[in-house]
Amino acid sequence: MSKTLGQLAEHVNGKVIGDANIEISAVATLDTATPSDISFLANPKYSRAIKTTKAGAIIVGKEAPCQIPLIVAADPYYAFAQIVILLHGHRKHRQEGISENANISPSANIGKNCHIHDFATVSDNAEIGEGTVIYPNVFVGPNVKIGSNCILYPSCVIYDRCILGNNVIINANTTIGKDGYGYATHKGVHHKIPQVGKVIIEDDVEIGGNCCLQRGAIEDTIVGKGSKLGDIISVGHGAKIGPYCLLVGQIGIAGSTTIGHHCVIGGQVGIVGHIKIGNCVQIGAQAGVINSVPDNANIVGTPAIDASIARRAYALIEDLPELKKAIQRLEKSANNE
Amino acid sequence: MSKTLGQLAEHVNGKVIGDANIEISAVATLDTATPSDISFLANPKYSRAIKTTKAGAIIVGKEAPCQIPLIVAADPYYAFAQIVILLHGHRKHRQEGISENANISPSANIGKNCHIHDFATVSDNAEIGEGTVIYPNVFVGPNVKIGSNCILYPSCVIYDRCILGNNVIINANTTIGKDGYGYATHKGVHHKIPQVGKVIIEDDVEIGGNCCLQRGAIEDTIVGKGSKLGDIISVGHGAKIGPYCLLVGQIGIAGSTTIGHHCVIGGQVGIVGHIKIGNCVQIGAQAGVINSVPDNANIVGTPAIDASIARRAYALIEDLPELKKAIQRLEKSANNE
Amino acid sequence: MSKTLGQLAEHVNGKVIGDANIEISAVATLDTATPSDISFLANPKYSRAIKTTKAGAIIVGKEAPCQIPLIVAADPYYAFAQIVILLHGHRKHRQEGISENANISPSANIGKNCHIHDFATVSDNAEIGEGTVIYPNVFVGPNVKIGSNCILYPSCVIYDRCILGNNVIINANTTIGKDGYGYATHKGVHHKIPQVGKVIIEDDVEIGGNCCLQRGAIEDTIVGKGSKLGDIISVGHGAKIGPYCLLVGQIGIAGSTTIGHHCVIGGQVGIVGHIKIGNCVQIGAQAGVINSVPDNANIVGTPAIDASIARRAYALIEDLPELKKAIQRLEKSANNE
Repeated sequence: MSKTLGQLAEHVNGKVIGDANIEISAVATLDTATPSDISFLANPKYSRAIKTTKAGAIIVGKEAPCQIPLIVAADPYYAFAQIVILLHGHRKHRQEGISENANISPSANIGKNCHIHDFATVSDNAEIGEGTVIYPNVFVGPNVKIGSNCILYPSCVIYDRCILGNNVIINANTTIGKDGYGYATHKGVHHKIPQVGKVIIEDDVEIGGNCCLQRGAIEDTIVGKGSKLGDIISVGHGAKIGPYCLLVGQIGIAGSTTIGHHCVIGGQVGIVGHIKIGNCVQIGAQAGVINSVPDNANIVGTPAIDASIARRAYALIEDLPELKKAIQRLEKSANNE
Repeated sequence: MSKTLGQLAEHVNGKVIGDANIEISAVATLDTATPSDISFLANPKYSRAIKTTKAGAIIVGKEAPCQIPLIVAADPYYAFAQIVILLHGHRKHRQEGISENANISPSANIGKNCHIHDFATVSDNAEIGEGTVIYPNVFVGPNVKIGSNCILYPSCVIYDRCILGNNVIINANTTIGKDGYGYATHKGVHHKIPQVGKVIIEDDVEIGGNCCLQRGAIEDTIVGKGSKLGDIISVGHGAKIGPYCLLVGQIGIAGSTTIGHHCVIGGQVGIVGHIKIGNCVQIGAQAGVINSVPDNANIVGTPAIDASIARRAYALIEDLPELKKAIQRLEKSANNE
Repeated sequence: MSKTLGQLAEHVNGKVIGDANIEISAVATLDTATPSDISFLANPKYSRAIKTTKAGAIIVGKEAPCQIPLIVAADPYYAFAQIVILLHGHRKHRQEGISENANISPSANIGKNCHIHDFATVSDNAEIGEGTVIYPNVFVGPNVKIGSNCILYPSCVIYDRCILGNNVIINANTTIGKDGYGYATHKGVHHKIPQVGKVIIEDDVEIGGNCCLQRGAIEDTIVGKGSKLGDIISVGHGAKIGPYCLLVGQIGIAGSTTIGHHCVIGGQVGIVGHIKIGNCVQIGAQAGVINSVPDNANIVGTPAIDASIARRAYALIEDLPELKKAIQRLEKSANNE
C-alpha cells in the first residue's frame, strides 16, 4: 500500500511543505529510511540526521527550512501514529474460527466472529464477547467475562471470575487474577486466606507480556479504562489503577494502593501498599514511593521526592566523600582555634 | 452458606460482643460491607470507618465500645482468615479426572484422585501424588516428582528432575528448574555449563505467578517448608530459602545465597550471591543486600543497612544540596578569618 | 560414565598432581563431594573446605600443596565446564519427532530431525531449521524464522516475523517480539502505534525464563551473537544488545538503547532509553543508568557512577545523620564567634 504525501497529510489534518505527489509506502527511522519512506523527528537532538537522511518525507511539529518534503502537524507524534496505522495497519489475526482443538466448555458463551485457536481453554460459564481473538494455550477460567474485540495472546492466563472490558489486549504469558498475597501468620505458620475479590480490566486497556495481576482479597483489583501497562509488571491485591495511566515496565504496585488518572510511571518503580497516588502524577524510573502523593506531583528517587530537588540531591551522593572530608577539615580547624 | 455470629465466634475461639444471632454470609471491607457481611479492622488508621460502615459485625483484637456486634479474637487476622475459609472456601477445582487431551507418558506414575486438564504434559517417569490438580498447558518434565494435593496452575513449567512436596501451589506462568545462569567464559566466548542440580520445593510452599527458579549448578536450589513466594520472583542457582519465609514480589536472589527461617523480604529486594541471611531477618522493599546478615536483623536501603539508621539516613539525601551549601559557607567563612 | 583423572586432565589440557588413575564419575561441591567426585575451587575464600572435603580430586588454577589429587588448568573454570559436559552432558531431549498433537501449519517449513512436542503451534509460513526442539505449548508465530539446533522450552512465545539464529535457547514462559510500548497520546487518550519492527536473536544466544523482549517500533530489537540473558529480563523496543554480553537477571533495558559487546550487567539494573553503552562495560547490580557510558567503564549505583567512587560514596549515606549534626555544630559555633 502506498499513498502520496498529500494523501497522508490530509489523513492527519497536516500541511505539506514540498512535493505533495511523492509516493510513500512505509515508515522508517531517519537513519534507515529510503526515498519511499516517511520518517518522524521525535527528538531535536537527532536533528543532525536530517542532513544525511534519505527519507522521502518527514513528519514534524513545526515548519522549518528543510530540503526534504515535510508534513507539519499540530500533534506530530499522533500524526505519525495515524500514518503508521494507515500504511502498515495493526497485526492481522488468523481467521481461525473456533478450533476443534480448543477446549470450550459447553456452558461457555462465545460471541460471534470470535477466533479461538488450538489448545486454548474456555472454562465453564465463561463469556466471550464478539470478535475476540484467543490465541493458543490461553486459559480462560470459570465464570470469566471478556468483552468484545479483545486479543488474548498465547499462554496468557485469566483466573476465575475476572472481568475484561472491550478492546482489551493481554500479551503473552501474562497472568490475570492469581490469588492476592494474603496469609495469616499464626504460631509461625502462614495460613492462606482465600482471595474473594477479582480483577477488573476496563475497556481499551493493554497489558504487556509476563505481567502478574493479583485478584483482590475482598475488594477487586482494577485497571482503569485506556491505561497501558508495559511488561513484567506486578500489581498487588486490591490495587486500583485509574484511567489513562501509562506504566512502563517492571513496575511493582503493592496491595490496596490507589492510583489516579493520567499518571505516568517509569520503569522498575516500586509503590508500597495502602497509599494514594493522585491524578496526573509522574514517577521517575526506579523510584521507591512510600507515601501518598498529591495530584500533579513529579517525583523521583528512593525514597521518592520532588523531581526538582531529587535530580540535584541524588547527584550529590557522588560528592559525599569530598563533603565528609570538608567537614572533617572544618572540625579540625575549629578544634585548633 | 451463612452462619450466625455466635457460630463464627465459636469457630475461631473468639468472644461475641453484641447480638450473637445475626446471620453472616460473607466477608467485606468496612467500606463495602452490608449487614450480612463481617468485616475486619486490620489497621487502626481505618478506624473512622467504623462510624460509617454498614457491616453486620467486625472482627477485632481488643474489646472496644462499638455499636456494631464484634468478634474479639486473640489473633484477629488469623480469626479473619479462618472465617473467610469457612464462609467462602478455597478455590474449587473442576472434577476433570485425567483428560484424554492431556499428554501423559505411559511411564508416568499418577496418584489417585488427580485432575489433569487438557493440553497438560506429564513426561516420562514423572510421579504425581494423590489429589494433585494440574491445569491446562502445564508442563511436568521427565523424572519430576510432585507430592499429593498440589495445585499447578495453567502454563507453569517444571523442568526435569525437580521435586515438589505435598500441598505445594505453583501459580500460572511460573518456571521451576530452568538451568542456572552458568557460563564459563573462555577467549571471550561464553560456554554453557550443564546444571546438574535441581529445584526442591518442600511441603506447603506457594510460589506466585511468573516466577523463575533456577536449578542448581551442582547443588540443589531449595525453597523450605511453608515459605510463600509472591509474583515475578527470580531465584538463582543453588540458593536456599529456609522454612516459613515470606517473599513479597519481584525479589531477586542470586546464586548460592542461603536464607534462614521466618525471614520477611519486601518487594523488589535484590540479594547478591554467596551470602548468608540469618533467621527472622526483615528486609525492606527495594533494598540491595550485598553482605551477610545476622539473625533478627532489620535492614533497608541500597546498600542495605540497619533500618533504624537507614530510615533517617536515606531521608537526608533530600537535604544534600542544603548541606553542601552550608559546608561551602563554613569553608568560605573559615578562609576569610 | 566414569573417567580416570588422567583422562579428564587430558580432555582439558591440564596437568595432574597426584594419582592420575583414580576414577571420577561426577562433579560436586567441596562440601558434598564423595571420593568419586571432582570438585572445583572457584573462590579462595572457600579454601578452608579443602581440609575437610572428601572429593576425589579438585580442579584448580595454580599448583598448590594439597593431599587431594589436583587437575591444574590454565583456565580452571573453563576446564570445570568441559568436565561437567564430559561427565554429565547437556540435557537430553525426548526423540519426539513431529507430534500429531502439535499444530503445524501446512505452509510452515520444518527442517530435518526436528522434535516438535504436543500442543506446540508452528504458524503459517514459519521456518524451523534442522534439529530444533520445540517443547509443548510453545507458540511460533506467522513468518517466524528459527535456525538449526535451537531449543524452545515450554510455553515460550515467539510473535510473528521474529528471527532466531542457530543454537539459540529460549527458556520457558519467555515472550519474544510482543509489541513495543508505543502509544501516541492525543487529547488524553493513548493510541496504540503498530510496531513495524521485529526481534532478531543471533546465533548462540540463550534467553532465560519469563523474559519479555519487545519488537521494535520501526527498527528491530537485536540480541547479538553469543550473549546470555538471565531470567525475567525486559528489553524495550529497538534496543540493541551487542555480542557476547552477560545480563544476569531482572534487568530492564528501555527502548532504542544500544549496548556494545562483552558487557556484564548485574541483577535488577535499569537502563533508560536512547542512550549508548560502550563495549566491555560493567554495570553493578541494581544500578540505574541514565546517561551514555564509554567503553570499559565500571559503574554502580542510582544514578550510576564510576564504581571506584560509588562504593565509597553510597556507603556514606549511612553517615548522613552524623554529617548533618557536625555541620549544625560547626554553624552554631561559627555563629557564636
